[in-house]
Amino acid sequence: MVKILKIGGSILTDKTRAEFPRTGEIERIAMEIASCPDDLILIHGAGSFGHIQARQYGLKERFNPKGILETHRSVVRLNDLVVEHLDDAGLHPIPVHPLGNTLLKGGRIDVMETKPILAMLKRGLLPVLHGDVAMDTSNGVEIVSGDQLVTHLAESLNPEVVALGTAADGVIFDGQVLKTVTKDTLPRIESQLGGSRGIDVTGGMKGKLLELLRLADKGIASTVFNAGKAGLIEKVLRCETVGTRVEGTAEASR
Amino acid sequence: MVKILKIGGSILTDKTRAEFPRTGEIERIAMEIASCPDDLILIHGAGSFGHIQARQYGLKERFNPKGILETHRSVVRLNDLVVEHLDDAGLHPIPVHPLGNTLLKGGRIDVMETKPILAMLKRGLLPVLHGDVAMDTSNGVEIVSGDQLVTHLAESLNPEVVALGTAADGVIFDGQVLKTVTKDTLPRIESQLGGSRGIDVTGGMKGKLLELLRLADKGIASTVFNAGKAGLIEKVLRCETVGTRVEGTAEASR
Repeated sequence: MVKILKIGGSILTDKTRAEFPRTGEIERIAMEIASCPDDLILIHGAGSFGHIQARQYGLKERFNPKGILETHRSVVRLNDLVVEHLDDAGLHPIPVHPLGNTLLKGGRIDVMETKPILAMLKRGLLPVLHGDVAMDTSNGVEIVSGDQLVTHLAESLNPEVVALGTAADGVIFDGQVLKTVTKDTLPRIESQLGGSRGIDVTGGMKGKLLELLRLADKGIASTVFNAGKAGLIEKVLRCETVGTRVEGTAEASR
Repeated sequence: MVKILKIGGSILTDKTRAEFPRTGEIERIAMEIASCPDDLILIHGAGSFGHIQARQYGLKERFNPKGILETHRSVVRLNDLVVEHLDDAGLHPIPVHPLGNTLLKGGRIDVMETKPILAMLKRGLLPVLHGDVAMDTSNGVEIVSGDQLVTHLAESLNPEVVALGTAADGVIFDGQVLKTVTKDTLPRIESQLGGSRGIDVTGGMKGKLLELLRLADKGIASTVFNAGKAGLIEKVLRCETVGTRVEGTAEASR
């Protein structure tokens, strides 16, 4: 069964500085994945790559061909780095860019071609996707976040593991990591769900939870954990309990 | 209506030297396209990019994850260059890599996601595809040539123009450029259809004609012309007669 792992842009980059990769972290993460790489789709956020171009060209406000190209080029530069480190760690990464295989409608994924990705998994390759710009039938172009890619792929592929590695230990409320979050928990905790540190055009922890609760509604639970702490990626890929589990209402408990 | 233009790798690169782009030619071609850029999908060959890696890793003989990655990376380097020059010429290029949106079966395209490409055209963008490696359900991985991308897209999109820019003036027989070629012409001329100059793993002029005759069978005529001669790209995009027309049998004449 497929595993879907997302690593947030705040882990892979310094989000307060333009296009600043944390190379040591990327290397560590590649090594952790190498300990348990089977049937894995990796998705990474863009961090400080892409976000700056998206702002500069005002992609949220207006359709700008040059802005689309420059934003895409920037996130691909981070993807290149990630792929390079995965390759160095002895893995078999293959870059897959959403811009070429995904169509949005009103900011949500309407079409995404997953057959080549499944064929890669079947042959032991490691598809590596990322937050990107993508064409949108309603809005011309939109940013498709790594989180939205996670939920879309999870819905189509019925995965064994859906894990979102962030810079936090999980979903935090009153200084404590919640063991589980459900749709019912959200109104109570929402005031304490800040954005992520530094620049972020894709919604921070609240945006992330909304994606994952949508997924939980469809019966697919997921995990939010700290990918900045060594060893946790390995644990999550081995189906061990880490961080916060996001579940459907029926199975909920705190 | 859509126009599909392919520029051969032998025009964009020196095929006898490893990863050697003809920058001046790429620049000229970008300028010619800029004179008539509407509703255009551009596909380019790989030339000396990718072919060397494909040979080195023996991709035709065995499934090799590192070879897939390195071959893809190489063809993307040429694609980056082409996109950059199109951008400099004031066009709105968007790179689209077949590896991420195409699945082959026995070396032929079985699935290709064209909706994002159509959305790009609709918004005045210029999708730029290229010969690439792609997953194959029968063979693991195969090379998908620019020529095959042309015919597949032409079949799906019913284009106004299908034009293949090569290093020859068209299809040549007894030293003359044939005005038209049909399925019936092929047996007579086949002995004189050599491969293209330098390295080529995708079949030279004969492979090209087989692709285009397959297309002609479905009622879609195409043009083979010399993209190395200044001014012809512009002509072909304006639907003027250049080079050799490849047609279905019913409408054939020499």
